[in-house]
Amino acid sequence: MAPQYAPSLRSRLAPLLLCLQTLFIIISALYFKNRVTVNKDDLRNFYSEFQDVNVMVILGFGFLSTFLVRHGFSSTGFNLLVAAIASQWALILTGVESWFSAGRITVDLKSIVVAELCTASALIAVGSVLGKANPVQLTVIVLLEVSGFVLNEWLLRTLLKVRPLSSIMLLHIFGALFGLTLTWIMYRKGSEDGFEKEKFDRKSGLFSSLGTVFLWMFWPSFNSVLVPDWTPWRKLGAVSSTYLALAVSAVTAAAVSVLCSPKGKLNLIQMQSCILAGGVAVGVSMSAVHEPWEAMAIGFTAAIVSTIGFKYLKKHMLLAYECHDTCAMLSTHGLPGLLGWLAQLVLQIKDCDDHTVATRFAVFHICTLFITISLSVSMGFLTGFLIKWNFCRPLQNKKCFDDQAFWEFPHLAAHK
Amino acid sequence: MAPQYAPSLRSRLAPLLLCLQTLFIIISALYFKNRVTVNKDDLRNFYSEFQDVNVMVILGFGFLSTFLVRHGFSSTGFNLLVAAIASQWALILTGVESWFSAGRITVDLKSIVVAELCTASALIAVGSVLGKANPVQLTVIVLLEVSGFVLNEWLLRTLLKVRPLSSIMLLHIFGALFGLTLTWIMYRKGSEDGFEKEKFDRKSGLFSSLGTVFLWMFWPSFNSVLVPDWTPWRKLGAVSSTYLALAVSAVTAAAVSVLCSPKGKLNLIQMQSCILAGGVAVGVSMSAVHEPWEAMAIGFTAAIVSTIGFKYLKKHMLLAYECHDTCAMLSTHGLPGLLGWLAQLVLQIKDCDDHTVATRFAVFHICTLFITISLSVSMGFLTGFLIKWNFCRPLQNKKCFDDQAFWEFPHLAAHK
Amino acid sequence: MAPQYAPSLRSRLAPLLLCLQTLFIIISALYFKNRVTVNKDDLRNFYSEFQDVNVMVILGFGFLSTFLVRHGFSSTGFNLLVAAIASQWALILTGVESWFSAGRITVDLKSIVVAELCTASALIAVGSVLGKANPVQLTVIVLLEVSGFVLNEWLLRTLLKVRPLSSIMLLHIFGALFGLTLTWIMYRKGSEDGFEKEKFDRKSGLFSSLGTVFLWMFWPSFNSVLVPDWTPWRKLGAVSSTYLALAVSAVTAAAVSVLCSPKGKLNLIQMQSCILAGGVAVGVSMSAVHEPWEAMAIGFTAAIVSTIGFKYLKKHMLLAYECHDTCAMLSTHGLPGLLGWLAQLVLQIKDCDDHTVATRFAVFHICTLFITISLSVSMGFLTGFLIKWNFCRPLQNKKCFDDQAFWEFPHLAAHK
Repeated sequence: MAPQYAPSLRSRLAPLLLCLQTLFIIISALYFKNRVTVNKDDLRNFYSEFQDVNVMVILGFGFLSTFLVRHGFSSTGFNLLVAAIASQWALILTGVESWFSAGRITVDLKSIVVAELCTASALIAVGSVLGKANPVQLTVIVLLEVSGFVLNEWLLRTLLKVRPLSSIMLLHIFGALFGLTLTWIMYRKGSEDGFEKEKFDRKSGLFSSLGTVFLWMFWPSFNSVLVPDWTPWRKLGAVSSTYLALAVSAVTAAAVSVLCSPKGKLNLIQMQSCILAGGVAVGVSMSAVHEPWEAMAIGFTAAIVSTIGFKYLKKHMLLAYECHDTCAMLSTHGLPGLLGWLAQLVLQIKDCDDHTVATRFAVFHICTLFITISLSVSMGFLTGFLIKWNFCRPLQNKKCFDDQAFWEFPHLAAHK
Repeated sequence: MAPQYAPSLRSRLAPLLLCLQTLFIIISALYFKNRVTVNKDDLRNFYSEFQDVNVMVILGFGFLSTFLVRHGFSSTGFNLLVAAIASQWALILTGVESWFSAGRITVDLKSIVVAELCTASALIAVGSVLGKANPVQLTVIVLLEVSGFVLNEWLLRTLLKVRPLSSIMLLHIFGALFGLTLTWIMYRKGSEDGFEKEKFDRKSGLFSSLGTVFLWMFWPSFNSVLVPDWTPWRKLGAVSSTYLALAVSAVTAAAVSVLCSPKGKLNLIQMQSCILAGGVAVGVSMSAVHEPWEAMAIGFTAAIVSTIGFKYLKKHMLLAYECHDTCAMLSTHGLPGLLGWLAQLVLQIKDCDDHTVATRFAVFHICTLFITISLSVSMGFLTGFLIKWNFCRPLQNKKCFDDQAFWEFPHLAAHK
Repeated sequence: MAPQYAPSLRSRLAPLLLCLQTLFIIISALYFKNRVTVNKDDLRNFYSEFQDVNVMVILGFGFLSTFLVRHGFSSTGFNLLVAAIASQWALILTGVESWFSAGRITVDLKSIVVAELCTASALIAVGSVLGKANPVQLTVIVLLEVSGFVLNEWLLRTLLKVRPLSSIMLLHIFGALFGLTLTWIMYRKGSEDGFEKEKFDRKSGLFSSLGTVFLWMFWPSFNSVLVPDWTPWRKLGAVSSTYLALAVSAVTAAAVSVLCSPKGKLNLIQMQSCILAGGVAVGVSMSAVHEPWEAMAIGFTAAIVSTIGFKYLKKHMLLAYECHDTCAMLSTHGLPGLLGWLAQLVLQIKDCDDHTVATRFAVFHICTLFITISLSVSMGFLTGFLIKWNFCRPLQNKKCFDDQAFWEFPHLAAHK
């Protein structure tokens, strides 16, 4: 049989990237301004958290999915590429409002951090289709995902008066459901048994451990970075709640993982996903978490839900719904995100003395979730149909999860 | 010969972890409170150092021991697991006093950092038995080690009025001696020749280099994090002293390592241990180090002691005393820690004009060391006998240093 | 054929390192003083950026060159070793002036950061000869490179009144040209076809990705660390300009890399070098970059120049000029650095209303470059002839790019 080469991306990827980049530079030349009235404190308060978030987005998400044994270059390389595109695009989109009102978009650390959080949402969506999409498709995905997410945030803010802090933290739910819909549309015949190359080995497992521990360590910064500086007790609360929830998650995930396994062994990839559940759930419910034990209880529940979801739901989604979720984003970000949403509802109602206020909050809170889910699923559909289009040159099944479709390996020549 | 499977931990590890975690959550529900009176400065001064210490404890110690070629998942995974347990337990124990006086335990960044330092002490002890203990045993070890260390700190503070800053830095000595006693009790017949799988390869050596450089880079934060903020010159002194001592250590360790080797080659694992010696020694003696050259001289001596210790003492301890120290914690943390203690004594006496004060200090200082050593050795004995108990299902010799005893490897099934 | 062993370094490396280290300690005992008048703000403003730069120098540069498949231990280990030597030496040299005027050298965070930046310059030079020089030669190289660079900075400051911020950022040009001259002098017969072991594999490529993303993520700190704290808007400008330039670089490098490849594939090592080009170029031209779009345009151009340089220039330099540049430092640091210099000239002139001032600036700016190039090339010559001297025991061609020349591999013995 003649070897089947992956379709060359030279005539697709290069023009797409160059056009996008030129467009971004033109927009920035017209509308971007550096902030000039900077308080000394603003900068230094923000800086180390900004860098932590940066590390999570680039290194954490990049290495998280290197467990795929023949897909390491693509996992990290494409993650960096789409993160660089998504954050520029998010910087433009989140500035549209200020462009309407003031005629220009101010660039400062806060706007960059918000752009990075939008990027994180896109990277969660990318995690679901990783290994099955080529970089052209990934670029289209992140552009549309970021657009959808920014639109969602704007809708929630204008329609329901949701505070930006709460609406941005819905990124986990938005990203996971977007990715899930996308991977359902992109379903390939023959992937019921999993892909041949979709496995890990000793070393690739360690690389993804590395990405995971960076996410785990810096999650307190992720959750606290947008808490305003003039409420330091809330910032401190966000940091210590996240820290405790993550610690509880790690212990619980190990316990449940051993319980789920017939031989009593741990599963590395399962554990990597599930130790992060506490951070996700506390992030979403943060504005209502006031006591350390609440955060710990949320972390405990989130880890149980996430671990069981990983074990049973991933397989089930594939067989029953033809939905192949590479990095199990549903159980890593989706379920803990929904749990966090529920926890926020319960805690908020518990804190209300007045019955009317509680009902009112519940209605608003349910609407928030409803809008987020509808928008993410419909954007997912739209994106899915767009990237199935032949222009994108989709990968053959055989080339899935393989770096060799996209990367030169000069050492192979040297072996001859 | 029928294959010998490692005993399943399903009925031991899962209940133990779930019970512990539930207990921690109940305690936190009863007694934990978030700090509410937070100064804006307190938070931001502390935050980046807190994250550095976090990185050292989770990533540094976790990847430091990944050089064991078939033990990478366990090294990093169990490190994260026991760190999450130990830091919660330390948060409770270090809060007992404030619980007595105020009826509750306040959680803030400082208490979390102290808990992480106690955790570091436990991880040092774990380093000595790594690969030879299962996760149930490791959990018991860290619980008892942290208890012993917090007790030691309390004894030193109440009996000898040692300042917390100095007593906490004894964590290196406490952890190393605790681990040494433990590994002596847990000695296995047949380990004189070393274990079959106790070796490194090109890639696992790089992973442990990664852990080491993170420890090396962030050690200045480790030593300065508890220096109070209203003495910025002392904080700066701690940072630059540690930086210089580490730089000197790295150069000296390479030189001595080449000198020790008959072929004039470097040993990676030896170098990894010994470049950190300066950080340990300066950390212990910090309150008495005032000039840069003192720190550099301490770093120089510590690297020599540590490198020679690694080369000759590790083998000797195994053959003469039946004491198998996996990560050579005696020469990495024990000897430099003792050297730091000695340096502090000498520098402190040199600074005293009055003979009586000097003698008085010397007596107190020797008592400090005596209490620390006694307590760590006796806690090590106690723990050792407890975990040899059959309930813990100790590993067979053949399964030592092997991930396959505890981790699923789904890709092996795929190879069939 | 009898096996050819690499010459033992026991009698060369150990005495050299011990003498150097003793000398440094003596100098520090005579002249180093810790800063005692520290403002609380000074420390905390600087600290997180100091650590970021530290991470870049030790981890970033260390792992950047681990792509060489049999040279990982040397890449990271020798990088740490020479960085520790270079930063001590730079601390002494940059303090010479204050020693003349005040009789002592004050050690604080700022002086350590400046020393680390000088070290970065030396590490860039080392990147060109990596794998072809033994640690004795590397030590000599960094000592002379740092001396040359500090001399250059002093010349520019005293002759041309160039501000330290601008002259230090010339480190990219100085280091790259120094290294290039050096590798030209050290040319080995038979390296036209590249070295047998000069290739990468799946895992070593990931390790160097790790180093690269750390450089990429923390580059904003690298460029902003020396911007004085009382101009926070300029500090913020440096951070956001660098961030944007790097994002643009990453996208552009991917596009051009695909365009250059006949099969439309990406080259990992090329991409790793070229995504950093924006950071280099913006760093050099920083004082003249005021608008976000300028930074983005510079990043765009730098990535194109760097990618094309990597593809065609590296091969050309080797064949036409017998100049073998291991890590392609010319296209990673040299060309983007020169581009940054040019951008600064153009932007600065554009901002000038007065014709005379513009001409004056242009003359000064060209002189700056001229001095830097002359000094780096002549120091490179000097160093090259010095290290070709037989005393250094140069490596045979067969032992190039191989860890086994310098590192013990105990696991090989265990296989027997």
